[in-house]
Amino acid sequence: MIGSDHRPASMIQGGAVFPHRHLLGIEGLQPHEIRFLLDEAERWVDAPASPPDRRLAGLTQINAFFENSTRTLLSFEIAGKRLGADVVNMHAAQSSVKKGETLIDTAQTLNAMRADVLVIRHGSSGAVQLIADKVDCPVLNAGDGRHEHPTQALLDALTIRRRLGSIAHKRVVICGDLLHSRVARSNILALTALAAEVRVCAPSTLMPAQVERMYVQPFTDFDAALEGADVVMMLRLQTERMDGAYVPSPREYRLRYGLTPERLARVPDALIMHPGPMNRGVEIDSSVADGPRSAITEQVAMGVAVRMACLDVLTRRARGVEGWA
Amino acid sequence: MIGSDHRPASMIQGGAVFPHRHLLGIEGLQPHEIRFLLDEAERWVDAPASPPDRRLAGLTQINAFFENSTRTLLSFEIAGKRLGADVVNMHAAQSSVKKGETLIDTAQTLNAMRADVLVIRHGSSGAVQLIADKVDCPVLNAGDGRHEHPTQALLDALTIRRRLGSIAHKRVVICGDLLHSRVARSNILALTALAAEVRVCAPSTLMPAQVERMYVQPFTDFDAALEGADVVMMLRLQTERMDGAYVPSPREYRLRYGLTPERLARVPDALIMHPGPMNRGVEIDSSVADGPRSAITEQVAMGVAVRMACLDVLTRRARGVEGWA
Amino acid sequence: MIGSDHRPASMIQGGAVFPHRHLLGIEGLQPHEIRFLLDEAERWVDAPASPPDRRLAGLTQINAFFENSTRTLLSFEIAGKRLGADVVNMHAAQSSVKKGETLIDTAQTLNAMRADVLVIRHGSSGAVQLIADKVDCPVLNAGDGRHEHPTQALLDALTIRRRLGSIAHKRVVICGDLLHSRVARSNILALTALAAEVRVCAPSTLMPAQVERMYVQPFTDFDAALEGADVVMMLRLQTERMDGAYVPSPREYRLRYGLTPERLARVPDALIMHPGPMNRGVEIDSSVADGPRSAITEQVAMGVAVRMACLDVLTRRARGVEGWA
Repeated sequence: MIGSDHRPASMIQGGAVFPHRHLLGIEGLQPHEIRFLLDEAERWVDAPASPPDRRLAGLTQINAFFENSTRTLLSFEIAGKRLGADVVNMHAAQSSVKKGETLIDTAQTLNAMRADVLVIRHGSSGAVQLIADKVDCPVLNAGDGRHEHPTQALLDALTIRRRLGSIAHKRVVICGDLLHSRVARSNILALTALAAEVRVCAPSTLMPAQVERMYVQPFTDFDAALEGADVVMMLRLQTERMDGAYVPSPREYRLRYGLTPERLARVPDALIMHPGPMNRGVEIDSSVADGPRSAITEQVAMGVAVRMACLDVLTRRARGVEGWA
Repeated sequence: MIGSDHRPASMIQGGAVFPHRHLLGIEGLQPHEIRFLLDEAERWVDAPASPPDRRLAGLTQINAFFENSTRTLLSFEIAGKRLGADVVNMHAAQSSVKKGETLIDTAQTLNAMRADVLVIRHGSSGAVQLIADKVDCPVLNAGDGRHEHPTQALLDALTIRRRLGSIAHKRVVICGDLLHSRVARSNILALTALAAEVRVCAPSTLMPAQVERMYVQPFTDFDAALEGADVVMMLRLQTERMDGAYVPSPREYRLRYGLTPERLARVPDALIMHPGPMNRGVEIDSSVADGPRSAITEQVAMGVAVRMACLDVLTRRARGVEGWA
Repeated sequence: MIGSDHRPASMIQGGAVFPHRHLLGIEGLQPHEIRFLLDEAERWVDAPASPPDRRLAGLTQINAFFENSTRTLLSFEIAGKRLGADVVNMHAAQSSVKKGETLIDTAQTLNAMRADVLVIRHGSSGAVQLIADKVDCPVLNAGDGRHEHPTQALLDALTIRRRLGSIAHKRVVICGDLLHSRVARSNILALTALAAEVRVCAPSTLMPAQVERMYVQPFTDFDAALEGADVVMMLRLQTERMDGAYVPSPREYRLRYGLTPERLARVPDALIMHPGPMNRGVEIDSSVADGPRSAITEQVAMGVAVRMACLDVLTRRARGVEGWA
């Protein structure tokens, strides 16, 4: 799974270094391609607002969110506008979809309006791929069902790389509802591709079957998993899972799988991450979330940079950027 | 109804060729005025995004949609942004209107914010006219009650003209819920003005009284109506009409008024149109909608071009464009 | 409360004339600071759209409205876009807030996305201050609970100053639900700071205790309050207060506290104001609202100008404007 490409990205023709038309998931990306996107994101991290870099001026970016997400939508909207794109949000929950229109008709409508890039979020795994197959422009997956959320994995990787210097050989513990989490899935794919040692931890009711096949080590005992961790990545426990079917109670969950100050004391130097929004006092305690080793707000900042990079890279071919046409 | 103006539009002063302040409907437009808008739209059909043409830069376009419509809103928003306007959406369903504010107060508020062009959609026939009477800027009707939806008729006319070369003397069959359809009404006005031969077809429960006065031939038998058709324009059957009061059942409706492959076989060369969103398997079958003679996605593309043209033309006076001031 | 600074604003270094990082309320502003914002707003009142003045180009303005307000949101959105900012609306009612995220987490998220200015509206008094304490960028209060709505007071002051030439020594009567009104509170603070004589009038159920401490004269008899008024400012009676607990009935309220033509006849030259949206026939009659002395639509226009001024002034430091860095 780990690539062997050691040529510096700058020496390779763009179209060759990232030959993908869409970004539908981390699966299928080569390690050097992931690193290329992270390198591209770096340039946006501290980019000055003035003068603004409007390289997407004249392009139409449509954010079609069939599933609500204030935070991810905001991040993609800001990313596109910072690059000068004409950004249009389609609130699909209130849309023709309700009138019984098929997903493919919606995709064809967006395509016919001559979108230059589509950002799609959908509650069903595979729906974004279905749309990508029907349109002429690049499609960015902003989360589909339990499948993937690739920009989240990229922003998490960027955060780790900037904080710890590198990702390879770092021990990353991902703890929480692995069964339903596309964030976890994309992160496992990205981090193992970048040669991290990934441990996953969940109650057995929330652990996917045969998770070992993803090159991770499963744990049900959080304390055991934490040993020697460089990074602890907590997952959000969706409210609808707290009611007894998967987890006895939020209180019980916190005791066994919450990142409390006591547990943090076992790995005082570990970087603490959470994709947000947090359930403070359930999967993570406030003193941990707000502590000196927390990278949680940095993750949000990296999110905008990573999305700018993805929007830029995916539209290069259509913009006729040298080396990409 | 058919105009006799044969001067080429380019030779006439702008203010003379299109002297209207608003676009509230097709009714009241001269044939040469309709043709002028179609000609203007042509320039936007294949306009390159780069460098963008920002002729509306600095202007404020407010889309005030008192009735939901993802598709039409998206189209107007993209059209305005492509021309560089500052586009602001007012989601009136969640607005002061709910607090009991009168329509005229809302209009005066939008006007006082110095909108340069207003795009209004409203559930009541005539509401857009009421607003237009109270404001200083051009108003574009994006659909009002059962009255008119002029940009839909323009985009349909543009689609036909581009596909068939001309509109005059073509036989167009409009089939579906004519009684409640502003799309049908605007299309009948535009197509008869441009000298098409228009046939309308509906079950008698959905046929307006005295529709012949609109210079169309009414049919209740769809197969008879289809004979010799150059264009077949299907209307959406609103879900709320399917329950028995107007139509026995969706299945029954399809049998008598659906565009099935069998029916299409009677007019194999006819252009197939639908304003969307479609009820696949009710008024139109999938194989027809996705077939080689379907112009349905092209209609969507023409929609953006037509709306760019209307926004451009209606703001020329205020922008001081030569010949329009 | 009345300042003694008589130096012309233009001769003072910017950072000295308006040293505040945020605009959270009128409270704490010096009279010369209020006048400075009004002077700044003047330049936007008749600013031509062409060529547009894009001084906020490249900056990200996030409007986070935790409480719905079509009108105020529209005004801030238009103001920001006219100045060239990348304006992003966060509809917080449909957001992570619902998922149990704390206000501070939301604030930190917005901050991490590198907002350059935040416009916040919230149902709880003090919530905007809480956010301002946690972020690196200027925060503009667009209304918080019963606390303040400073831009409303500024636009009202600007309207009066432009119509009557000055504010000092003018008699202003504010009538309505003073108990729950942040509009009234901010207006009282601004108008008394600018040396107006302020009278407040309400039924005793809607009059705050010890309102005299705000340097106003309280009345329960509207006719007595009106005597000699230069300005009559009516407040909106929220529908939820009409049901008997605070007010016997809308009809009864109109008789005692409504601005009817009969009452207007006692002060024929007074300027009539209302923050909108109006309950016509309750707190104000239509013939008064639409009469020659009404400044109601002018207030809306001043709103955009005032918000442009506030957005411009508060971002000067970050933009490195000379005299502000």
